[in-house]
Amino acid sequence: MMHPRTFRVDYDHVTSVVCVVDSGLNVNLNRSAPPGSEFFSVKSTATVQYSISPRPQETSHLSPIPLKGNSALLIRMSHASDYENDGKLSIRYYGEKKDVLGRALMHLTAVEISLDVDADRDGVVEKNNANKGSWKWGSNGHGAILLVNCDSEWMFLKKPDSEQDQVSKVSDLKDMSLMVLRTKGPAKLPEGYKLTMHISQGDAESVRVFRARSSGVESNSMQKLFNLFVKEYPLVLSNEVLSQEVPYLGGVSEMKFYVEGLRYPDKDFDGLISINLSLLEPISEGLPETPIFTDTAVFRVAPWIMTPNTLQPVEVFVCCTSDNYQFLKGMRNLVTKSGYKLKICHEYMNREDRWMQDELEFGYIDSPHHGFPVVLDSPRDRGLKDFPYDELLGPDFGYVTRVAQREDVSSLDSFGNLEVSPPVTVNGKNYPLGRILIGVAFPTATKGRNMTKVVQDFLWAQKVQEPVALFSDWLLVGHIDEFMSFVPAPDRKGFRLLLASPDAGYKLFRGLHRDGHGQAKLFEGLKDEEQQTVDEILNDRGLAAENNYVQSCIDWNRDVLKRELGLDDEDIIDLPILFKLVMDNKAETELRAVAYYPDMVNMIVLGKNLGIPKPFGPKVNGRCALEVEMCSLMEGLGLSCTFIDAFASYHKQLGEVHCGSNVRREPFYFKWWNLEM
Amino acid sequence: MMHPRTFRVDYDHVTSVVCVVDSGLNVNLNRSAPPGSEFFSVKSTATVQYSISPRPQETSHLSPIPLKGNSALLIRMSHASDYENDGKLSIRYYGEKKDVLGRALMHLTAVEISLDVDADRDGVVEKNNANKGSWKWGSNGHGAILLVNCDSEWMFLKKPDSEQDQVSKVSDLKDMSLMVLRTKGPAKLPEGYKLTMHISQGDAESVRVFRARSSGVESNSMQKLFNLFVKEYPLVLSNEVLSQEVPYLGGVSEMKFYVEGLRYPDKDFDGLISINLSLLEPISEGLPETPIFTDTAVFRVAPWIMTPNTLQPVEVFVCCTSDNYQFLKGMRNLVTKSGYKLKICHEYMNREDRWMQDELEFGYIDSPHHGFPVVLDSPRDRGLKDFPYDELLGPDFGYVTRVAQREDVSSLDSFGNLEVSPPVTVNGKNYPLGRILIGVAFPTATKGRNMTKVVQDFLWAQKVQEPVALFSDWLLVGHIDEFMSFVPAPDRKGFRLLLASPDAGYKLFRGLHRDGHGQAKLFEGLKDEEQQTVDEILNDRGLAAENNYVQSCIDWNRDVLKRELGLDDEDIIDLPILFKLVMDNKAETELRAVAYYPDMVNMIVLGKNLGIPKPFGPKVNGRCALEVEMCSLMEGLGLSCTFIDAFASYHKQLGEVHCGSNVRREPFYFKWWNLEM
Repeated sequence: MMHPRTFRVDYDHVTSVVCVVDSGLNVNLNRSAPPGSEFFSVKSTATVQYSISPRPQETSHLSPIPLKGNSALLIRMSHASDYENDGKLSIRYYGEKKDVLGRALMHLTAVEISLDVDADRDGVVEKNNANKGSWKWGSNGHGAILLVNCDSEWMFLKKPDSEQDQVSKVSDLKDMSLMVLRTKGPAKLPEGYKLTMHISQGDAESVRVFRARSSGVESNSMQKLFNLFVKEYPLVLSNEVLSQEVPYLGGVSEMKFYVEGLRYPDKDFDGLISINLSLLEPISEGLPETPIFTDTAVFRVAPWIMTPNTLQPVEVFVCCTSDNYQFLKGMRNLVTKSGYKLKICHEYMNREDRWMQDELEFGYIDSPHHGFPVVLDSPRDRGLKDFPYDELLGPDFGYVTRVAQREDVSSLDSFGNLEVSPPVTVNGKNYPLGRILIGVAFPTATKGRNMTKVVQDFLWAQKVQEPVALFSDWLLVGHIDEFMSFVPAPDRKGFRLLLASPDAGYKLFRGLHRDGHGQAKLFEGLKDEEQQTVDEILNDRGLAAENNYVQSCIDWNRDVLKRELGLDDEDIIDLPILFKLVMDNKAETELRAVAYYPDMVNMIVLGKNLGIPKPFGPKVNGRCALEVEMCSLMEGLGLSCTFIDAFASYHKQLGEVHCGSNVRREPFYFKWWNLEM
Repeated sequence: MMHPRTFRVDYDHVTSVVCVVDSGLNVNLNRSAPPGSEFFSVKSTATVQYSISPRPQETSHLSPIPLKGNSALLIRMSHASDYENDGKLSIRYYGEKKDVLGRALMHLTAVEISLDVDADRDGVVEKNNANKGSWKWGSNGHGAILLVNCDSEWMFLKKPDSEQDQVSKVSDLKDMSLMVLRTKGPAKLPEGYKLTMHISQGDAESVRVFRARSSGVESNSMQKLFNLFVKEYPLVLSNEVLSQEVPYLGGVSEMKFYVEGLRYPDKDFDGLISINLSLLEPISEGLPETPIFTDTAVFRVAPWIMTPNTLQPVEVFVCCTSDNYQFLKGMRNLVTKSGYKLKICHEYMNREDRWMQDELEFGYIDSPHHGFPVVLDSPRDRGLKDFPYDELLGPDFGYVTRVAQREDVSSLDSFGNLEVSPPVTVNGKNYPLGRILIGVAFPTATKGRNMTKVVQDFLWAQKVQEPVALFSDWLLVGHIDEFMSFVPAPDRKGFRLLLASPDAGYKLFRGLHRDGHGQAKLFEGLKDEEQQTVDEILNDRGLAAENNYVQSCIDWNRDVLKRELGLDDEDIIDLPILFKLVMDNKAETELRAVAYYPDMVNMIVLGKNLGIPKPFGPKVNGRCALEVEMCSLMEGLGLSCTFIDAFASYHKQLGEVHCGSNVRREPFYFKWWNLEM
């Protein structure tokens, strides 16, 4: 039961008051008794319940009760009134000789008020959930959920709906959370009482509330329909209006509101917002009304969630450029064979920027009532920079970005450097949505490149896929997808971590040498590419030293991944890949690594089909030894390898198949609000 | 035990490596074995422990062990080395016929490294506390504590030490947290290995680290001493240097560091910072060294804590103005009688701004090693604006402020509107440091004054005295100290909440009328003040209506205070005080309340002595009836009332005794880090 409200009653007056059903009024009887009062008595109509404290001694309950310093009356009404002032209560005050010194009369009107949301997360707004005013994670948790309305209902002159200043289509309502104000009481409230909805200044940056004026609109002119529609969903609360009166409809009524999220959790926003509905009591002209009852609903803004390689693909995106026919052909075959859609971004849009992986990351947002994919646009902003907004943003396809200072953006801000693991359990802690992985410089480095702070802050603030920072600054391009990937597996944790491994590469080449294939050649059949024999590679002591360094960098990441994802060595597969060090022209003195031959770990994973950069390795009996090794490592997992020739148009430009593609995947079956945090 | 580090060993090589005692090396034996290897064997010196996995079958342990795909060697050293490379381990690889195919030799050097802090909070830096890398609240908690170094060691050209760019006095060191780097190992590390201390970019805004170069300084010239001193404590980490090498001293050694907090917890800073110490392994020229071991110490920045009326006073501050002789005389008598120090701020400093309560709030910060008072300077900034910085900031007296936009600052930003309750328990939740109380407009108000957001954010971020927002915008001046105060009590919760109560005032006046004192006069003996009889007041229906409104405002706060501080009606005492409404000139149409006669609740509490504004109420038998009532209400609590004449110089200027004074108090005995959060 709610804390009762302190209420003052004057003698020789009629006091009218509205109270909310089941919320009490606490009247201090002594405070405003006539001087000389020694006794009192109380009478009420049946609809008004009261109790006296301290509890009077059990004599005839009709006789006056001694008035004490702490005598108080607790009044409550358990049912809504049919008419204004239909509850009555009177107090009589008596002197020493039980002579009547004064009488106070109260007229009471009871209303039921409940600001209702889907606090039990079943997609339906239930009535007056006891837990609606707080938010708790977990399958036994509670609290309503809000989406950032970051898609665009319109394709023409579009922008995210949260940046539009009105609700402009019925379809926009489903991106918002329904909130229902349920009231029950007389046809109208007594003079001066009113209902007000309000939010705090801080929350107003993150949320807006619209009201549904009525249920239907009928019209057939488009513009008229639009205008009518906007009028039908007036804006109630926003950054500019923190508090606004909402009508009391009378009788038993429900009024619908639509709550719209405006921003994602971030460093300065934990994602929680409160919406309040208060009943105001009038005082008099020029004085602010007093809130005498407040009901509060708490929402959490849904986080942006990434999708790992183990989730079912929906669409595959690649760029068409002037020189990548070979690659497109290979990709089309693979994607068609796998049964997914291939979407091609054409040259007018990509402006010869082929790195589809790097400009954007596909994710999604979800709630019990609705969910949709959301693209995170990188601050990288090269040729593809308009693609996420211009081509992806649309109805039920959201858009979010973080704006960084130009000088803070480096190659590590490309989203080949942003991945997510499959679900893992680490020392008993579950990550059913996996963990985000990013690449940065060593924390000990006095200089070095990093993912920009605004993006890192955003990723950490989403909370549900707690990020892990890896070391990728040792690579010239600096992306974690150059040394790692995840593939599905039928056993163990449901996946394997693939790591590029120079040691595995050298082991394979030494084996070839031992078996008499030292003269087999890499890069055979590639024009403009100098061929290398296995023995030439094995005899290059400089290359060996460089690869030892690369292996130590990857081993450092291996140790972090084992620790932070709870992996054993048996969960990891080493792929035979060599690197070489080159001068980083942008940093003059720094040596950084690039793949020596196509970097097979930089693959695209489509269910059980892997699209792997064709390595052009040494041939033994007509088959590429690297492809044979790769197939043998993968086939135990039931995975099928397709090698795609991306040599000229990708590998020579320091990227591979994964860098040149992107996959939108199905969301997790697991609901993020069921996380135990 | 720590996760072992993946380490690669080449055959036909000697590999030198440094490892940290008790942290393992994990060598994948298969990965770099010579081609054709089928067996291996391992030998080591006594100082090197190793285990083989999978565990070999128990045959003669001297015979070669079959090499499997997952064969691995876990190596560790349990004691620090006396000399470089004094641990040896060799691996032999054998072919099918147990012919030796290759041999790998490792030279190992073990060191002990521990970055130590006072994680158990006893004021002493213990050795390698297992919990130093995390922070937990409570009496069973752990984690080191940091002070914001916001006092000033220098009185001349002073500024807070955290804004100085060096350590300039020995006394400054005690405001910082000692951190000790303990190492044990050979006289020097093998070539290229080094130690580096580092912090994240985010943490660097909040912390700096100095190093003690040696233990003592001897000199007698002041300037020489200063220069020497600064050299003796070089800055290691700061906003500009996130990572810096620290020397390895060799043998058994301890190096002292001093960690300095730079900013208080705030909306964007949770108060936690990490300091890391890594051992770096060299790779080669032009390549970044790899961190192979990292030890981390976590600190929490001590929050700023307010002191309620129930704590022991230390000093009382008042202003001397051209017209307040009478008030100063009264205060001097009270403070002297009570045994405390009276400090007077003179006119050259206060510029006729007499509201000592409003410009500043006294608080303190505390840690297991040190603590001191800290003044929070209000953005109010009237005549007294320089007083906190110029007069209070000094050695072991800290200063903090929040800068607001001029247009955002209102009368509600004066710290008469910022108070703190005594310790309370609310629905089983303990607040052993009480709860902060501030006054704002109703959350439902469409307009109204508020405490500025930067100050509110600061107060909420301190966490340990979770704030409660009251409604004070109904008052012309708008400060919660106009209607409430706390006094110590020997019973119940150890205190009473005093509330101004027009109802109690009317009750008293009605009683006077009934007893034949209706012609007794208020304001007797005050020149330039029109006297009022009790009957005149009782007959003023307008005044009664105004006071009904005021009572409803105070009752609203009463209900919030009961709920948020867990109080019963018996914990509250109503004081007989009347108000009247006046036009707020700054807001034209708004009526707001001021006290009708001196507002007795606006008192100063010095232990059991209360300094109360002399009310100049109606006299009965030569004694002021208001004073008599006040004394009678307080004496049951063992409190002594002194009435101070502040009528002309304070009351008439819309303030009273509390507004015109400030008290610095002893800190809580309870330590904030023992809070269960």
